[in-house]
Amino acid sequence: MPCDRDPMVDRDSAHDRDRDPVHDEVDAGLLEPVRSGTPVEAATSDAAYLRALLDVEAALARAQARIGLIPAEAAAAIEAGTRGTFDLVDLARRARGAGNPVVPLVQDLGAAVRALDPAAADHVHLGATSQDIVDSAAMLVAARALDATLPDLARTAAALADLAERHRDTLQAGRTLTQHAVPTTFGLVAAGWCVAVTDAWAHTRAVRAALPAQLGGAAGTLAALGPHGVALLAPFAEELGLAEPVLPWHTLRAPILDLAGAPVRVTGALGKFAGDVALLGQTEVGEVAEATGAGRGGSSAMPHKHNPVLSVLIVSAARQVPGYVSILAASAAGAEYQRPAGAWHAEWQPLRAALRLAGGAASTAAELAEGLVVFPDRMRANLELTGGRIVSERLVAELTAEHGATQARRLLTDASRTSARTGRHLRDVLGEADETLFDPAGHLGSTPALIDRALAHHRTVFRFQEKVT
Amino acid sequence: MPCDRDPMVDRDSAHDRDRDPVHDEVDAGLLEPVRSGTPVEAATSDAAYLRALLDVEAALARAQARIGLIPAEAAAAIEAGTRGTFDLVDLARRARGAGNPVVPLVQDLGAAVRALDPAAADHVHLGATSQDIVDSAAMLVAARALDATLPDLARTAAALADLAERHRDTLQAGRTLTQHAVPTTFGLVAAGWCVAVTDAWAHTRAVRAALPAQLGGAAGTLAALGPHGVALLAPFAEELGLAEPVLPWHTLRAPILDLAGAPVRVTGALGKFAGDVALLGQTEVGEVAEATGAGRGGSSAMPHKHNPVLSVLIVSAARQVPGYVSILAASAAGAEYQRPAGAWHAEWQPLRAALRLAGGAASTAAELAEGLVVFPDRMRANLELTGGRIVSERLVAELTAEHGATQARRLLTDASRTSARTGRHLRDVLGEADETLFDPAGHLGSTPALIDRALAHHRTVFRFQEKVT
Amino acid sequence: MPCDRDPMVDRDSAHDRDRDPVHDEVDAGLLEPVRSGTPVEAATSDAAYLRALLDVEAALARAQARIGLIPAEAAAAIEAGTRGTFDLVDLARRARGAGNPVVPLVQDLGAAVRALDPAAADHVHLGATSQDIVDSAAMLVAARALDATLPDLARTAAALADLAERHRDTLQAGRTLTQHAVPTTFGLVAAGWCVAVTDAWAHTRAVRAALPAQLGGAAGTLAALGPHGVALLAPFAEELGLAEPVLPWHTLRAPILDLAGAPVRVTGALGKFAGDVALLGQTEVGEVAEATGAGRGGSSAMPHKHNPVLSVLIVSAARQVPGYVSILAASAAGAEYQRPAGAWHAEWQPLRAALRLAGGAASTAAELAEGLVVFPDRMRANLELTGGRIVSERLVAELTAEHGATQARRLLTDASRTSARTGRHLRDVLGEADETLFDPAGHLGSTPALIDRALAHHRTVFRFQEKVT
Amino acid sequence: MPCDRDPMVDRDSAHDRDRDPVHDEVDAGLLEPVRSGTPVEAATSDAAYLRALLDVEAALARAQARIGLIPAEAAAAIEAGTRGTFDLVDLARRARGAGNPVVPLVQDLGAAVRALDPAAADHVHLGATSQDIVDSAAMLVAARALDATLPDLARTAAALADLAERHRDTLQAGRTLTQHAVPTTFGLVAAGWCVAVTDAWAHTRAVRAALPAQLGGAAGTLAALGPHGVALLAPFAEELGLAEPVLPWHTLRAPILDLAGAPVRVTGALGKFAGDVALLGQTEVGEVAEATGAGRGGSSAMPHKHNPVLSVLIVSAARQVPGYVSILAASAAGAEYQRPAGAWHAEWQPLRAALRLAGGAASTAAELAEGLVVFPDRMRANLELTGGRIVSERLVAELTAEHGATQARRLLTDASRTSARTGRHLRDVLGEADETLFDPAGHLGSTPALIDRALAHHRTVFRFQEKVT
Repeated sequence: MPCDRDPMVDRDSAHDRDRDPVHDEVDAGLLEPVRSGTPVEAATSDAAYLRALLDVEAALARAQARIGLIPAEAAAAIEAGTRGTFDLVDLARRARGAGNPVVPLVQDLGAAVRALDPAAADHVHLGATSQDIVDSAAMLVAARALDATLPDLARTAAALADLAERHRDTLQAGRTLTQHAVPTTFGLVAAGWCVAVTDAWAHTRAVRAALPAQLGGAAGTLAALGPHGVALLAPFAEELGLAEPVLPWHTLRAPILDLAGAPVRVTGALGKFAGDVALLGQTEVGEVAEATGAGRGGSSAMPHKHNPVLSVLIVSAARQVPGYVSILAASAAGAEYQRPAGAWHAEWQPLRAALRLAGGAASTAAELAEGLVVFPDRMRANLELTGGRIVSERLVAELTAEHGATQARRLLTDASRTSARTGRHLRDVLGEADETLFDPAGHLGSTPALIDRALAHHRTVFRFQEKVT
Repeated sequence: MPCDRDPMVDRDSAHDRDRDPVHDEVDAGLLEPVRSGTPVEAATSDAAYLRALLDVEAALARAQARIGLIPAEAAAAIEAGTRGTFDLVDLARRARGAGNPVVPLVQDLGAAVRALDPAAADHVHLGATSQDIVDSAAMLVAARALDATLPDLARTAAALADLAERHRDTLQAGRTLTQHAVPTTFGLVAAGWCVAVTDAWAHTRAVRAALPAQLGGAAGTLAALGPHGVALLAPFAEELGLAEPVLPWHTLRAPILDLAGAPVRVTGALGKFAGDVALLGQTEVGEVAEATGAGRGGSSAMPHKHNPVLSVLIVSAARQVPGYVSILAASAAGAEYQRPAGAWHAEWQPLRAALRLAGGAASTAAELAEGLVVFPDRMRANLELTGGRIVSERLVAELTAEHGATQARRLLTDASRTSARTGRHLRDVLGEADETLFDPAGHLGSTPALIDRALAHHRTVFRFQEKVT
Repeated sequence: MPCDRDPMVDRDSAHDRDRDPVHDEVDAGLLEPVRSGTPVEAATSDAAYLRALLDVEAALARAQARIGLIPAEAAAAIEAGTRGTFDLVDLARRARGAGNPVVPLVQDLGAAVRALDPAAADHVHLGATSQDIVDSAAMLVAARALDATLPDLARTAAALADLAERHRDTLQAGRTLTQHAVPTTFGLVAAGWCVAVTDAWAHTRAVRAALPAQLGGAAGTLAALGPHGVALLAPFAEELGLAEPVLPWHTLRAPILDLAGAPVRVTGALGKFAGDVALLGQTEVGEVAEATGAGRGGSSAMPHKHNPVLSVLIVSAARQVPGYVSILAASAAGAEYQRPAGAWHAEWQPLRAALRLAGGAASTAAELAEGLVVFPDRMRANLELTGGRIVSERLVAELTAEHGATQARRLLTDASRTSARTGRHLRDVLGEADETLFDPAGHLGSTPALIDRALAHHRTVFRFQEKVT
Repeated sequence: MPCDRDPMVDRDSAHDRDRDPVHDEVDAGLLEPVRSGTPVEAATSDAAYLRALLDVEAALARAQARIGLIPAEAAAAIEAGTRGTFDLVDLARRARGAGNPVVPLVQDLGAAVRALDPAAADHVHLGATSQDIVDSAAMLVAARALDATLPDLARTAAALADLAERHRDTLQAGRTLTQHAVPTTFGLVAAGWCVAVTDAWAHTRAVRAALPAQLGGAAGTLAALGPHGVALLAPFAEELGLAEPVLPWHTLRAPILDLAGAPVRVTGALGKFAGDVALLGQTEVGEVAEATGAGRGGSSAMPHKHNPVLSVLIVSAARQVPGYVSILAASAAGAEYQRPAGAWHAEWQPLRAALRLAGGAASTAAELAEGLVVFPDRMRANLELTGGRIVSERLVAELTAEHGATQARRLLTDASRTSARTGRHLRDVLGEADETLFDPAGHLGSTPALIDRALAHHRTVFRFQEKVT
């Protein structure tokens, strides 16, 4: 897959202007720090899209040469042409003419090829429609973005598995609807995060493997290739490292919906993890903290601040992805005729944004998970805050034998209220002598077994996936 | 799976009131005709949810009896209790107290069981938390909703496969960005719809098979069952006909995200199909029409109207699902701690709505596909509207040999403009003698091969699935 | 405005069936406890929509009689006919025929009127199209829903203003990015909630006053009324208590977008308030609590639980509304031709859902605000948690005079880290003798003045609005 | 308002690198041709945001000098410092440290000011928090974006008013649910578009005028300014040309929700207009066409293509905005405490995207409306397609006098079916002699009066607005 070439973007032509349009009109990630400088950023930039568009044109020519549709020399010239320089800002502007960047790009590519080999120029973009190039390029970009995302998800999952193992017995309050419920361990909490990220990794990996090439010609019949179109599907997909679709999917957008599932799963898992870290790190809770570092988590006004900034950035990504993906879902359902008048064009930016946010969140999450600082003493201290009420469920069970469930529950409800109102320990309110009944470690149920299940799942998923690679 | 029981809803208690609350406060589908009276409607009503909640309590008791946690007699009494009558409106109101309907339902169920077998009452809801019941019931409802949806998707796919086969050679204009592009056949168009619906069926089937039971107890540790909790997971899931999860997923909401993918895929495919039917049936296009029927497609004002009402209803569903699913995605990412304070509760209604709309759309689509009326003559006539310009792509190829691609393209662009402006046939403008060049049937490319691929895919998916059943 | 009539729904016909369809297929709010039993629920039920549809037909007849288009007797008969009984479930099912409930309703209404006055039957629904009735009814329902919502918003704002006044000087930690930042007072926090709810009330009130009637006839030309259509607009709107639009808005959906702004603003303000209450009530924070009450906030498993259930329900509503409203926005932009094929139908349910959730959230918020329990001692105690670091900003200012800003900031950063690491009070780390520098009450800035602004704003908005009523 | 300065962005520092990061990582609009090269693009770029952030710091210093908080010389030095050069890509990367770009920007600005006037450096960013700067800058950018959008909306509305006037009597088929319904005129259709765009203009103008400055300090108390904070609100807002808020709105996000209403209204109106143009320009309908132009509407494969590319681009924008705005609405409801941990950061990019798409759509719509080509002959010809059935509503009215409504309707339903099935004109089927009954011009109802209302509304809105300017 031709993704490791030198950048093909013209650095000069864009600057040969009175007023530098690049600086005045471009975005550089200022409003999305979650992805700023992360691997996925470079994989999803406009320059990366431009590169992918050119990669697709080159792959098309190579595939056509392989089955004898065009001369090998023409393919070589076209490939050489795609390594030339192109003016991104100029292409973006001319894209308004036909509504997509391929029409001007093919003009420029044709000129570049013609300069190298006049005979080859007629074979540029042969039999393809703009959507073939844009959709295939989007899949290439998606593949590269997911490839940049998967290692960070794996790192995150591994770090969380490690936390689960190390804190297997670190007691912590289980919290439901913001209130202490029953005891758990931080190991089980981390194991839950680990399973979520592990499954998001596996899901993303499956999605990445299924990304299809697009080739249908003007209206999905591959008409311009005469009877040879179908034979081109497999080699074209192979040249791109993408899957071969059953049919052109210009207006059958299941591939977009399946792809969109990956960022949803990724930011769903990471948003939950990061949101928990932010809450557990609240000043009053203080059970975890993000790693400190130069310039990390500071404030412009308050020198004492150590903000959970990695968590904040991850949450910011997780809050955006659902909206972006809803646009993709609506566009898929509205993809009319053989090329939609707007529903297709509406996909481009939200798809890129979702991939970029997911990848940025994964990079950020790996850093967060690997550096997470845990305070077992604070966890233990917080468990005491309810004066024994955190094991009220256990006490109901104990008293049910004697009093029946209804009466036991009523007793505990009354005693809990008294304890909460007066601040007295529930043990004292109940006059219960057996201290062990109030030991949080005695009401953990299946916690160890569940951690074992989670860790085994993590091992199995990653081991299995390594094997099939 | 205990889904075929008699309805367990109280028909009397709700009516023993001065003013019938049912009629004044309930919804009956007036605002969602796409699902009114369809199988999925009954599978997803509040009554169906209530039934599912009770089914889960019964399954919990049976599973606990199987592994010896409670006496078999208690399980039998609990199951009998769930067959009693419950007041839906009253439960809905009391659900405000704890924020979910399980707390009042367990009270009422406990009372019902106590009346049958006082000793059994203490075993009701043993070790479970409200979320275990609500989530498992939601999965049961989803399973039943998808079971009601799948046959209609299969019917739709079959009808579309039949259309693809029958209209394999029925010439039609391929349309991109609303304009005639190159010829296609209605068979290929129908084949595309067929592949989309086929894949949505397969996706939905896989989603349905993976729906997991939920059992975690108060905070996901199964604490109240002591060391026995983990052992209960498998039999509990088995009793419900659901999958066994690795961990309780109270705040690890991947199952919801995976489930949400099904209505997105279903309405994505059906919305595209229905939207195309609506467009192809426009007065000016007239290439297809919905089947006529008593009261179908009429207007309150205009007696001549034959509206594509099935398509309209399907489109209405397809336009809603993306918004509902975005709520689910956002809630998954925001599921804090061991039970979220709102993000969980926000899932219930959008999930039901998405399932209901998808199922309603599937029923409607089956009717649409099976009754679709096709007008090959209008398709043929429309192909002539552009005076031969619909094969301009082919002519470029023909002239490229002689003039080179650039010049050939320029020639055709000029000639096409002249043809469009003057209304003269492109053949005349070009002074081209060879009439066969302008035959739309001569510029179909891989159309027949693509139809074959689509039909083979349809057969494979359904045959394979039948085998694994 | 004819909104105070007796319910017109048939209570008998729906029950004269072997198997009661009402109970098996209806929704009663089981999945939306936030609105269960609240005033807005009754105002937005299917029965309420049916009532509104009939109210619109009656208003149309009255308006036509007023300008002499139909005899006064006919209008009286039609109005009497709308007071008859109609079968909601049956209408919902027959709505599938034409894609909306008006076609079957007009049939039934026509029959009812014919029975009363045969000559009047020809005047039923005269000159109107289904969309005129559905849209006008939706506006009527919206008006009634907002009328049911506004008093609860006013109650909420008043209760919050009272909290702001009473807790003007109750010191509390200001928290940014989950961490203690600088001191504030609970009075200012409550004042912020108050301003948000006050403005949501004013916005909702303005939206409600602008809701327009819809009347355009078959395709927006009022064709069936000959030249009289325009003259009917004003009296028709007047009969409905709605505004007169410039044009029929069948496919110009600004009124829907404007209306949708109200639930967004309402749940935006209330979700913020409720989310804060849930966080401030966390076990570790403990600064506020919801009022206790019978069955309020309990758990099915843990007798000690006192969950912030009102907050949870409000948050659940606030999390849903954005998704619903995105459907409305997309439908408005996609309202093609003179009546859209699906985009209109997709509005009905999300619009109702948004109104219902906003109204339910308002009722719940009024209860929450009026019953909120505040713990000033916990607020004061929490302020001490950072060992004086919460006033680090103030100390920078003090030290800047002596050391310059950069050096002062560096000193405080180092000292804060030492304080955090060692647990020593910042005063001791700095060796600062002046204790008053560390008094949180000394670093409140404009807090009192801002509370005054907020309370004045609250008074002004409500007083002004009372005047213009 | 300091928005007309020279760009302040460093053009050199970003290029002094081995590998130009700008070209490899930036976006230039390749995926959003709807805004490529339009005025709003420059107003909303990352460079524009950077400029706005600096403008806010300068305005803060000026306002503080005005009320004597800092020396006038310091304010002048700070303002001079903001005119220096800053490295956008570097700032974007360092923004990850604190989660927003203000922390590194203040460092760089401080250094720049120190170089100019060491004493002034301590006064940079005095009393402000990062969110004050980011939110105020977002409002500045919004103001500039809306200022760039409003003239294009006005142009669009004017062009549509002109079309409405010129085509007042140009008969056209009214279409509902894709089918011919009753006649209308293209003038009324254009008048509807005009009213929608006019109202969107007025709405946007009101939104723009209400955009508030943000100033609250670390946690909304303006603590660092001692008692002077409140006094700074008015001059600070004035310096920015923004409104003065009642309270800091760090977590009271109504201003964002109100602002978000503008792009929703704009793309709602323009999406409807563009969608109609695309449909009316379908090959089979052919009633309108976009203006031709160099490179406009071409295809990469088919030389005859004249695609409605402006419409397509506008529709692509209209399909995205609802998803972006749903993120804003959800973030507003989730803005916890005194600064949210993610919900605030999630706003930045979707807000910019929505403004940019709205502005791009407005530019595109002005071009579309001003160049729209209308084909009255095709409109007239299409009216004949249903063989007189398009006036069936009128005929019912005519026959009702004789036969009663029910029978008249039945007669016309049968005759319409016969006409549709046989292709015979309805006149012949009915044996009706009076040809004038079938004249579409005779069934226009209030069309002329409605056009007058629309044009008067257009004039009033723009005249009134001009006066109040």
